[in-house]
Amino acid sequence: MKIAVLPGDGIGTEIVAEAVKVLNVLDLDFEMETAPVGGAAYEAHGHPLPESTLNLAKQADAILFGAVGDWKYDKLDRPLRPEQAILGLRKHLGLFANFRPAICYEQLTHASSLKPELVAGLDILIIRELTGDIYFGQPRGRRTATDGHFPGAEEAFDTMRYSRPEIERIAHVAFQAARKRSKRVTSVDKANVLETFQFWKDVVTEVGREYPDVELDHMYVDNAAMQLVKAPKRFDVVVTGNMFGDILSDEAAMLTGSIGMLPSASLNAQNQGLYEPSHGSAPDIAGQGVANPLATILSAAMMLRFSLDQPEAADRIESAVRQVLAQGLRTADIHSEGTTQVGTRDMGDAVVAAI
Amino acid sequence: MKIAVLPGDGIGTEIVAEAVKVLNVLDLDFEMETAPVGGAAYEAHGHPLPESTLNLAKQADAILFGAVGDWKYDKLDRPLRPEQAILGLRKHLGLFANFRPAICYEQLTHASSLKPELVAGLDILIIRELTGDIYFGQPRGRRTATDGHFPGAEEAFDTMRYSRPEIERIAHVAFQAARKRSKRVTSVDKANVLETFQFWKDVVTEVGREYPDVELDHMYVDNAAMQLVKAPKRFDVVVTGNMFGDILSDEAAMLTGSIGMLPSASLNAQNQGLYEPSHGSAPDIAGQGVANPLATILSAAMMLRFSLDQPEAADRIESAVRQVLAQGLRTADIHSEGTTQVGTRDMGDAVVAAI
Ligand SMILES: CC(C)[C@H](C(=O)O)[C@@H](O)C(=O)O
Ligand SMILES: CC(C)[C@H](C(=O)O)[C@@H](O)C(=O)O
Repeated sequence: MKIAVLPGDGIGTEIVAEAVKVLNVLDLDFEMETAPVGGAAYEAHGHPLPESTLNLAKQADAILFGAVGDWKYDKLDRPLRPEQAILGLRKHLGLFANFRPAICYEQLTHASSLKPELVAGLDILIIRELTGDIYFGQPRGRRTATDGHFPGAEEAFDTMRYSRPEIERIAHVAFQAARKRSKRVTSVDKANVLETFQFWKDVVTEVGREYPDVELDHMYVDNAAMQLVKAPKRFDVVVTGNMFGDILSDEAAMLTGSIGMLPSASLNAQNQGLYEPSHGSAPDIAGQGVANPLATILSAAMMLRFSLDQPEAADRIESAVRQVLAQGLRTADIHSEGTTQVGTRDMGDAVVAAI
Repeated sequence: MKIAVLPGDGIGTEIVAEAVKVLNVLDLDFEMETAPVGGAAYEAHGHPLPESTLNLAKQADAILFGAVGDWKYDKLDRPLRPEQAILGLRKHLGLFANFRPAICYEQLTHASSLKPELVAGLDILIIRELTGDIYFGQPRGRRTATDGHFPGAEEAFDTMRYSRPEIERIAHVAFQAARKRSKRVTSVDKANVLETFQFWKDVVTEVGREYPDVELDHMYVDNAAMQLVKAPKRFDVVVTGNMFGDILSDEAAMLTGSIGMLPSASLNAQNQGLYEPSHGSAPDIAGQGVANPLATILSAAMMLRFSLDQPEAADRIESAVRQVLAQGLRTADIHSEGTTQVGTRDMGDAVVAAI
């Protein structure tokens, strides 16, 4: 089995190095090959997702991804900016199912902006559709308006769209995930305004009939943004489109107070997947050895479970992470009084030791 | 001067009655005329926004709006559902500038989900564009997909769009509002993915050059959803499009913990405006006399200031509201130990007495 390792920019290289260290200690039989992506790839090959990197990713069973982006690329044309690599990988590999857990670890409850009683024990799974919606819909661009409020004016436009099979397959993913959890799915839409999301709601409802054991409810996206703040524990599995999922999964992650702990997985129909931390490339702290590698290490665990069929190895990593937290080790982002602050490498070493 | 009074559904009638009571005690020279809207109008005239109500709204200098919606209308065809009245009023009156303050009142800090130190003194003004974006963009509908992942499949679609003058006018509103506050504007976009919001960012930046005294920064919508949770006080004026504004203004309102206190204004180019509480019609508590009328009363104050040129009268209402809070009077939604719980009518009476 082959893992493509794409560290990327900013803290990407530092945190991916720790995850690789952890994978190596498991003594499993897989090959890892590293390639540049994002700004690093632009520097090396003039493109954020060079052919060679894309080919490596396509051939691999799984991709371990760090993070991309740096302010210094802000002035580049859009197709050359680091984040296009992410969009390109999602598109070319058909990674339509994004799993974004928002978990509040017992020892880190205090780190949340929310009052402890609202987040203690929080465990939400946001399932975001990742290859459709307004992210990829055509046509899009600039033109002269022919109707609307200002005909004749310059305007820009994008197309939001979802087809029935796209909605069906992500709905199945959500219902199946819910079966392994508390059997509740909340589908988030904006059916009161958008044709696309009235259709979304209709199709999710239809698919839901195949899962009579799973409770389905529907919520408007504005209300979901509120309920996440008011009573996040009311949610279990949340399924939504690409754009709303982008916003809500980040909001939910930040609610836990420890986004440095949260992994993510993006899968295609063949269970080939891209695994990356939920946080970004944090160029402000890059190279200082202070970044939290745990989200990336936990992403490697998700990779073992979802794409590499090694659930025991995944369990070993996850319990090692719980152990280092119990030992009181903390990187700067989750540090608090009475705990021991450590750097990126020490944290990786501690996980290795715990395994 | 003429005020159209549109109480609507659910708690709408109860809370608007209190705001009307407060307006009447000010002894100003204006005429009020009431008409049904939303579900109430559907019952009476078969349409959520009947001609007669729309005409009254058009002729008025300002509209005092309660709330619309009830579960019992969920099964109606979309064009007949209560919320279409709101969209229709925005469109027909050209109410493009929505002001949504998110203020945390000193005495109500404890009501927030967030830790008190994060919200104490919070005072954000979200300015949401209200007549453009994917809410009204054409074409939209259902069709057979001709490209994308599943050509030949049934799909639904919508069009996101903004023209230059639409962005310019809302940007001017935001910069001018910021001049009266702490001179900072955050423009929220998704320029890394959407053509519409790259254009938005470009045009807001251009307009910003006319306001060298105002500091402008740009933030992606997913990051904004996170920063609102992490450090809401970093924001002052936030300007964004219709869809993102829908989500972020509700998230921000809920952060304060007292959405029952938050007014809103929606203005057109002639300063004609619609004023309504930020919360909804709450059918679950309708008719019980327990709803909080303060958001509607404060909306009436905004109406006096923005559309009716009566700033002193607006001040009188706002200081009366502060006074009743200081007296310890609270409706159920904001009640806590050591304060006196009162009903809708008593709260209205207390504001009248304080004036
Ligand atoms: C970088 C950006 C294009 C991306 C997105 O919007 O999907 C990111 O925010 C994410 O959520 O992975
Ligand atoms: C009722 C609905 C159409 C409306 C909107 O999405 O604009 C509401 O959520 C709001 O924010 O006023």
